[in-house]
Amino acid sequence: MTTDHAHSAPETQSRAHTGGSLAIPVNSESYPRRSCAPSELTITEGFWAQRQHVNATTTLAHCLYWITSLGWIQNFTNVARGTTGAHHGWQFADSEVYKLMEALAWEYGRTANPEANQTFEKLIWVVISAQDPDGYLNTAFGHPNQPPRYSDLSSGHELYCMGHMLQAAVARVRTFGEDDFTAAARKAADHICRTFGPDGNQGFCGHPEIELGLVEFGRAVDEPRYLSQAALFVERRGHRTLPPPALLSSDYFQDDAPVRSKDAWSGHAVRALYLACAATDVAVDTHDHELLEALAGQWHHTVARRTYITGGMGSRHQDEGFGEDWELPTDRAYCETCAGVASLMVSWRLYLATGAVEYVDQLERTLFNVLAGAVNPSGDAFFCANTLFQRSEGHEIDGISLRAESSLRAPWFDVACCPTNLARTIASLNAYVASVDTRPEAPQITLALLIPCDINLSLPAGPAHLSVRTSYPASGRVDIALGQWPAGASLRLRVPAWCSAASISRTGETRSVSPGWVTLRGLESGEKVTLTIDISARISFPDPRVDAARGSVAVERGPLVMCLEGCDVPENGSLDDVVVNPQTLAEDPNGSITIHGSIRHPDAQWRLPYGPKAATDSQPATFRLIPYYTRALRGTSVMRVFLPYEDPTSTKKRGTPCSL
Amino acid sequence: MTTDHAHSAPETQSRAHTGGSLAIPVNSESYPRRSCAPSELTITEGFWAQRQHVNATTTLAHCLYWITSLGWIQNFTNVARGTTGAHHGWQFADSEVYKLMEALAWEYGRTANPEANQTFEKLIWVVISAQDPDGYLNTAFGHPNQPPRYSDLSSGHELYCMGHMLQAAVARVRTFGEDDFTAAARKAADHICRTFGPDGNQGFCGHPEIELGLVEFGRAVDEPRYLSQAALFVERRGHRTLPPPALLSSDYFQDDAPVRSKDAWSGHAVRALYLACAATDVAVDTHDHELLEALAGQWHHTVARRTYITGGMGSRHQDEGFGEDWELPTDRAYCETCAGVASLMVSWRLYLATGAVEYVDQLERTLFNVLAGAVNPSGDAFFCANTLFQRSEGHEIDGISLRAESSLRAPWFDVACCPTNLARTIASLNAYVASVDTRPEAPQITLALLIPCDINLSLPAGPAHLSVRTSYPASGRVDIALGQWPAGASLRLRVPAWCSAASISRTGETRSVSPGWVTLRGLESGEKVTLTIDISARISFPDPRVDAARGSVAVERGPLVMCLEGCDVPENGSLDDVVVNPQTLAEDPNGSITIHGSIRHPDAQWRLPYGPKAATDSQPATFRLIPYYTRALRGTSVMRVFLPYEDPTSTKKRGTPCSL
Repeated sequence: MTTDHAHSAPETQSRAHTGGSLAIPVNSESYPRRSCAPSELTITEGFWAQRQHVNATTTLAHCLYWITSLGWIQNFTNVARGTTGAHHGWQFADSEVYKLMEALAWEYGRTANPEANQTFEKLIWVVISAQDPDGYLNTAFGHPNQPPRYSDLSSGHELYCMGHMLQAAVARVRTFGEDDFTAAARKAADHICRTFGPDGNQGFCGHPEIELGLVEFGRAVDEPRYLSQAALFVERRGHRTLPPPALLSSDYFQDDAPVRSKDAWSGHAVRALYLACAATDVAVDTHDHELLEALAGQWHHTVARRTYITGGMGSRHQDEGFGEDWELPTDRAYCETCAGVASLMVSWRLYLATGAVEYVDQLERTLFNVLAGAVNPSGDAFFCANTLFQRSEGHEIDGISLRAESSLRAPWFDVACCPTNLARTIASLNAYVASVDTRPEAPQITLALLIPCDINLSLPAGPAHLSVRTSYPASGRVDIALGQWPAGASLRLRVPAWCSAASISRTGETRSVSPGWVTLRGLESGEKVTLTIDISARISFPDPRVDAARGSVAVERGPLVMCLEGCDVPENGSLDDVVVNPQTLAEDPNGSITIHGSIRHPDAQWRLPYGPKAATDSQPATFRLIPYYTRALRGTSVMRVFLPYEDPTSTKKRGTPCSL
Repeated sequence: MTTDHAHSAPETQSRAHTGGSLAIPVNSESYPRRSCAPSELTITEGFWAQRQHVNATTTLAHCLYWITSLGWIQNFTNVARGTTGAHHGWQFADSEVYKLMEALAWEYGRTANPEANQTFEKLIWVVISAQDPDGYLNTAFGHPNQPPRYSDLSSGHELYCMGHMLQAAVARVRTFGEDDFTAAARKAADHICRTFGPDGNQGFCGHPEIELGLVEFGRAVDEPRYLSQAALFVERRGHRTLPPPALLSSDYFQDDAPVRSKDAWSGHAVRALYLACAATDVAVDTHDHELLEALAGQWHHTVARRTYITGGMGSRHQDEGFGEDWELPTDRAYCETCAGVASLMVSWRLYLATGAVEYVDQLERTLFNVLAGAVNPSGDAFFCANTLFQRSEGHEIDGISLRAESSLRAPWFDVACCPTNLARTIASLNAYVASVDTRPEAPQITLALLIPCDINLSLPAGPAHLSVRTSYPASGRVDIALGQWPAGASLRLRVPAWCSAASISRTGETRSVSPGWVTLRGLESGEKVTLTIDISARISFPDPRVDAARGSVAVERGPLVMCLEGCDVPENGSLDDVVVNPQTLAEDPNGSITIHGSIRHPDAQWRLPYGPKAATDSQPATFRLIPYYTRALRGTSVMRVFLPYEDPTSTKKRGTPCSL
C-alpha cells in the first residue's frame, strides 16, 4: 500500500450511480432510506479520516502479511494443486481472506487506490483456482485428505466462509463491476441454492453469515433466488436440528428457537448479530413486518439489558456469548470486536428500516468505544475482547495472542476474525455517516454521525450539496454549509440521547433542541446551520440491576466513555482501591478530565473477604481519566471504566467499630 | 443397597489399627496429626448422619445405575474382549468407576455394609480384566481402534484415571486389606514409575490426580517409589512443556509455573486443588518446608481473594477456573462441586500439616454450603456448578444435564465428575470430624467439626472416649461427655471465626472464649463440657474490592449462608428488584429468618441502562431467607445470595429529579 489515497471515487463507481452499484454494503429499494456512497460522501478530516488513512496505509497490508505468512493463502493454492491435507489455521481461515478482499474492495471504492485493486485482483486468482467445478469453495473440506463437504455443519464453517466470499463479491460488484470474482461468487451461490434448497440438504451453517452474503449478493446481482435461499436458512434455524458442539447447547448458535420468536439476542454474540442482520434484510425485502418487529424488539431488549456502556456486546468468554439480562461483568466483559462490527451492522439496518434515532445513537456509542479502541492508532495491533476492567497488566505481545488477553493490543490472534472485520468496516465507514430517503416524494438527507464530510447527492429533485465541519468529539460544534439545495428537501440532524443541552443556529436565530432528530425544513441553497451540543463530561450511573457495576459510576464525555488506567492512580495505589466522589468531576479548558476521591488502604491482616463491615484508612487522591478508546497506549496497565463511589455509610476512621 | 447400615467397622478394619490401615484418606506419620477413622469415630445422628445414610442407600446405587447404563462399565469389558473402538462417554469415564469404587470402599469401612463390598468386588473383576499385562489400564487409549497410549497427555486423562484407581485402592487397602485390586493398582503404579520415571517419558498428565493417587497408595502399601514418582510429577509441571488445549493456555492446567513458585491458585480449579493436595502430601513426606509454605501462602491468598462466601472456588465457566483477585461474579460463579471436594481435601491436609484453625473454618464453610447443597436430600440429583445468583428459572431435568445449568439439580451430567466425588467424600466424612495428635508426648484430640459423634481412641497414654451431642447448625450448643480419658491428654474445640460470642462451661464454671482453638487441659474421665456459640443470623459485607457484590450484603447463620429464592419475593416481584435494609434482619424463635426492604418498580419506558441516576418507585416488602444448601427444592426458581442494600443517596420519590 502507498500512502497515496486520493479522495475520489474510481471511474467504475462514478459511471454507475444506480442503486445496485452504489459502493455501500446495504442497498435495497425495500428500505425507505439508503446510505450515502463514497462517490456522494467524502470524510474530509478528523478522527475517522485519520482512521481510514491508517486502515488504508497500514492495516490492509498488515492483515495481508499475517494471512500470507500463516499459510491461509496457501490453503487455496494447495486445493488448486491437489496437495490438500495439511490445512493451515482454523477451519474458517478462508473467511479472513474474503474479509480482507472485502476491505480492499471498499477501499478501492472509496479512494480508487490502484494498489488496493491490484491486491484484490491477485487474490481473485488465488481464490478462484480453489473453486470446484460445481461452485463449492472451501479449503478445509471436500478434497483429498479432508473431511467430506458439509460433514460438520455445526462447526465446519463452510457456508460461513462462502458467505464472506459473497460479501466480498458485493463490495467488488459495487466498486468495480462484475468480473471473474463475481462470476465465481455466482457459481458458489448457485451451488448453495442447489445443495441447500427446499428439496436439498435441510441443514444450515453453525455460524450464520451465508444468509447475509446471499441476500446482499442477490441484491447486487439482481438474483432473487439468493434472497429466497437466505430466507430459507433464516427460517430453518431455531428448531434444535443442528448438533451443538461439545459442552454447548443449541442456544450457542441460535438453533434453540426461531429468530422471529425470540425476545432478546442470546448465545454467541457475533452469530446472533450476523443472523439478526440477515433476518432484517430478509424481513425488509420480503415485507415481513412480524419478523422486523421481532428484530426491533430484540434490539431494544438487548441494548437495554445485555449491552455494556461502551456498546460492547457479549458478557461471557465461555461461548463468546450474550449473558442473561443484567449479566454484565466488567472484568470478564467479552465485547468481541467482531460483535461490535456486527452490532453496528444490525443497528444501521434497523435504522434504515425504521428511521428511529436510537439505532444511530447506539451505533455511534459502539463506533467510538468498541471499534475505535479495538485497533491502535498505528493500525497494526488489535483487541479481540474489549474488557471494561483490565485487572492484570500482562505483558507485551509480539506475535499471536489467544485473544489479546494481556492488557495490550496484539498484532494478531489465534482466532483472527477481528482485524479484517475492522478493516472492512473502516474502509466502508462512509456508508454510516449519512442517509438519503429513497422516496422521491419526501426528499430528506439525514446526517447520522457528526463527522466532517462533503456530501454531493443527485436527488430526483436536483443536486444537493452540503459540507459538515466539526472537530467532534473534541468539540460539540458542528457547522453545516449548504451548497446547492433542492427545494423541499429536508435535512435531519441527530442530537444524541445523552446530550443535556443542544441548540441549532440558523439564519441568525438560535433555538434549543432536544435529543433525537432535529428536522430542518425550508432550507435554501447556500444556507449555513450550526448545531451545538453539550459534550461536557458527565457521570453515568448504571441501572441498579447491573450487579457488576452497582455502587460505581462511569464518566462519559460526548460519545466517549472514559476510563482510569493504573498509571494514573497516584502513589502506586491499586486500581482495586480507588473510590471517587461523583460530585467532583471536573474538566479543564484543555479537555483534561479529573475526578477526586481516595485510595483505600485495605487491612494488611489476613481475613476472609466476607464479614462485618471493616473500616479502612484511605488517603485523598485525584484521578485523571482518559477516553476508553485510548487505553493501553502507554505500556501494559490495569484499567477500569466503572469507578466505585463513596458509600456514605462507610466513612469511619480507623479503629472506630462499625455498627453495621 | 439395603438400608441396613450398622454403625460398626468391618472385621478387617477392627483387626488392624495400625496407622497404615486406618480407614482414612490421608495417613502419613510425617503429618503431626491424623484423622479419626470410622473405627474410632461414629457420626451418630443429625445432619451428616442423615447425609451418610442417603449416600449409602441411594447415591451409590444411583451412580452405579448411570455408570452402567451409559456404558462406562462396558468400556472395561470391551477392552477385555478386544472389541475396542466405540468408547462410551468422555475419555475420563474410567475415573467415575474408580471414584464409585472408592466411595463403596469407604462405605464398607464405615459400616461394614456387605453389599457395598460385594459391589466393589464385582467391579474389581471388571477393572482388572481390562488391565494390560504391563500394568497399563485405560479403556480409551492403547488398544485396537484407539489412539496410542499417552498420545494426548494434555487431554487424554490416562494418568488421571489411574490416579483415581490408586485412590480407590487406598480405600480398599485400608478398609479390607490387600487383594487382587490392590495388586492391580501396584502393577499400574509400577508401570507408571517405569514409564514416567527420571529417565522415561518426561511428560505428565494434563489433569493432576495421579500425583495424589501415587503418594497415598505409596503410603498405604509402604512403597516409597510411588512417593518419588509423585514428587517428580509435581516438579516436572510448571515449565510450559505440555501443549495446552485449543484456546486455552498453560495456566489452565498449572503448567505455567512450578507449584512452589506461585502466589495463588489459578487455572482450572479442580486441577489446581488436586495438585495442591498432592504437593502438600509430597511436601510433608519429603520435609520440604519451602513447598509447604508456598502452598499455605497460596491457600491464604486464594481464600482471601478468589473464593466465594460459600467456600466455592472457581469464578469462570470458560475454563472451570479461578479468576483473578476479586473476580467473583455471583451469577457466573462456577464453584464446581468437585472443586468443593478438592478444596476440602487441601484444607484438611494443610490443617493436618499445621494445625491452624482457619483451614478447618474454611472446610466447614465449604462442607455446609458447597457440598451439602450440591446433592438433594434424596441423594439422586446434583449440581455441578453452584452459582450464587440463579438468574433464570430453567426447567426440570429428567436425564443428563450439561452442568445442571437450569435452576434445579440434575440426575446426571454430561461431564459427570461430581456425583461420585460427592459420594466418596460423604462416605469418608468421618475422617474430617476430629483429629489426633500423633506425637505421643503431647496427646491431643481435636474436635474439628461440631458434629454429633462418639469417639473411642486407643492413645499410647490409654483409651480416650468422648461423645459429642449437638443439633448444630440448628443450635449453637455442643455437649461433650468424656468417658475414659488418659491423664495429660488435651481436647481442642473450635470456635468458628464468624462467631461473635461463645462460652465454655466446665465443672460448673462458664467462661467466654474467642474464635479459634479452645484447648481444654486437665480433663478427667467422666467430665462434661458444654460449648455454646452464637449462631444467630448476621449480616456479612463483602470486601469492597469484590465488584460483583458491591452494595450488597449476604446473610449467614452459624456456618450456613442464606439465600433468597424467587418464590419468597412477595407479589411476583423480580429478584432483580429486591433491595434490603440490613438493620432489619430478624430471626424468630423457630429459626425463620427475615429481612425487610423493598421491591423497586423500574421505569417501564425503554432507556439505556447507563445515564443519570433515575428515581424509581418501590414498595415495602419482607423477604424470608432460606439456607443456601436448601435452594432449588421447591421447583424451579431464581435465587440469590447477595442482596443489594438501600443506597441512602437514592431515596427520592418518583418525579423528583436526582441532583446526582
